[in-house]
Amino acid sequence: MENTLLHENERLDELNRNGYKIIQHPKRFCFGIDAVLLGAFSMVREGEKVLDIGTGTGVIPILMEARYGGTDYTGIEIQSEVADMAKRSVEYNNLSDKIRIDNADVKDAVDLYGTSNFDVITTNPPYMTVSRGIVNPNDTKAISRHEVSVTIEDIARISSKLLREKGRFYMVHRPNRLMEIIVVLGKYDLEVKRLRMVHPYIDKDANMMLIEASYKGGAFMKVEKPLIVYNADGQYTNEVKKLYYD
Amino acid sequence: MENTLLHENERLDELNRNGYKIIQHPKRFCFGIDAVLLGAFSMVREGEKVLDIGTGTGVIPILMEARYGGTDYTGIEIQSEVADMAKRSVEYNNLSDKIRIDNADVKDAVDLYGTSNFDVITTNPPYMTVSRGIVNPNDTKAISRHEVSVTIEDIARISSKLLREKGRFYMVHRPNRLMEIIVVLGKYDLEVKRLRMVHPYIDKDANMMLIEASYKGGAFMKVEKPLIVYNADGQYTNEVKKLYYD
Repeated sequence: MENTLLHENERLDELNRNGYKIIQHPKRFCFGIDAVLLGAFSMVREGEKVLDIGTGTGVIPILMEARYGGTDYTGIEIQSEVADMAKRSVEYNNLSDKIRIDNADVKDAVDLYGTSNFDVITTNPPYMTVSRGIVNPNDTKAISRHEVSVTIEDIARISSKLLREKGRFYMVHRPNRLMEIIVVLGKYDLEVKRLRMVHPYIDKDANMMLIEASYKGGAFMKVEKPLIVYNADGQYTNEVKKLYYD
Repeated sequence: MENTLLHENERLDELNRNGYKIIQHPKRFCFGIDAVLLGAFSMVREGEKVLDIGTGTGVIPILMEARYGGTDYTGIEIQSEVADMAKRSVEYNNLSDKIRIDNADVKDAVDLYGTSNFDVITTNPPYMTVSRGIVNPNDTKAISRHEVSVTIEDIARISSKLLREKGRFYMVHRPNRLMEIIVVLGKYDLEVKRLRMVHPYIDKDANMMLIEASYKGGAFMKVEKPLIVYNADGQYTNEVKKLYYD
């Protein structure tokens, strides 16, 4: 099966869960610790419908199915070559009955899926605005890293339509955008419930943050214990090891 | 001097800095670790004018003068008995030429001080909204703890008028109000620059947060390393010991 699903120059990488693997292309965006952290921070209960916005290689729904079970995941991805890799990874892991990959623009998601139709939305969006750094709009890595095709406000507006009331929205992003993100989420009734800061070392500024918001969920939030990635010796902390390997 | 400055039932408590002491009344709001953390998190440069909103016993300007020097602190406090204690503490510590205490409502601050007249504003406001818990508006502790006389939005609106452009606004508050605080600060052009979460223990949710915002300062923020109050054995961490005693 590997031979037909894996195309030239692609790699089949371990996910360390359920024996699952993922197809990645070294010249395209490859998943990092942010996807692993988001997959673990997000929660899915039995019977819930989950949408991953900008799913890329499909790593988040695949990791979440491995961690939580669940049978109704959809990943939407605008880049056709990347969506195709995601579809083949789903097939490789025999998850076609649980995870569906749609090659579509998230701006068409309400037309595609209808309103109030998801319990959970996850997203690991591009971190950088287009104004920062040079962007080639035909560059597949640029689309994954910069807000070429979608902004945080697009994602918040669309998610507020797609989620049922009290549905949960999970995002990983950079702390330097926190103020803007909170304002934009609030504008679309996505009330932040949990915030977890991710620090590379305990004595360093946060370089990632994990957010859970609830659509029309009321304004009460907590800031959870910090997530520290590395010990002073440069090894993963026990918590991060567990997120990767347990 | 102590005898005339210290009234019946009041205590003279150590501040562990410069030999300074503070007059407190056991039946009124006594300063806690939040004031110590805010005093250290806030920064004052030579020649800057500082206003502490809701100064209470004056603990924040007194601690900041001890830490940073500076000659132009004002504390504004609505409760006359509390403002009177603050004035006597300033006098006790021979700081009358550097710290002025005004017994006034912060809502009159723009009339009192004019616009764009401060470089730095600090505030340790009441944490609780009036709707939470029973409030007796004549209760001096209630005024210190609940938003009886002033809300976050009042403070933000007034601070935006009092601060010069790029002036700094420092606040300690509860993380459960973060979303609301960011939205309100943003509304009045107070852009969050630094955010530091305070966790009682490293594996617990944050129970305080320290915020630095800049008036018309541009939208780029960082989330600093977490501030952990206690070690696993229940003793203050070295960082907190230093904030209290060094």
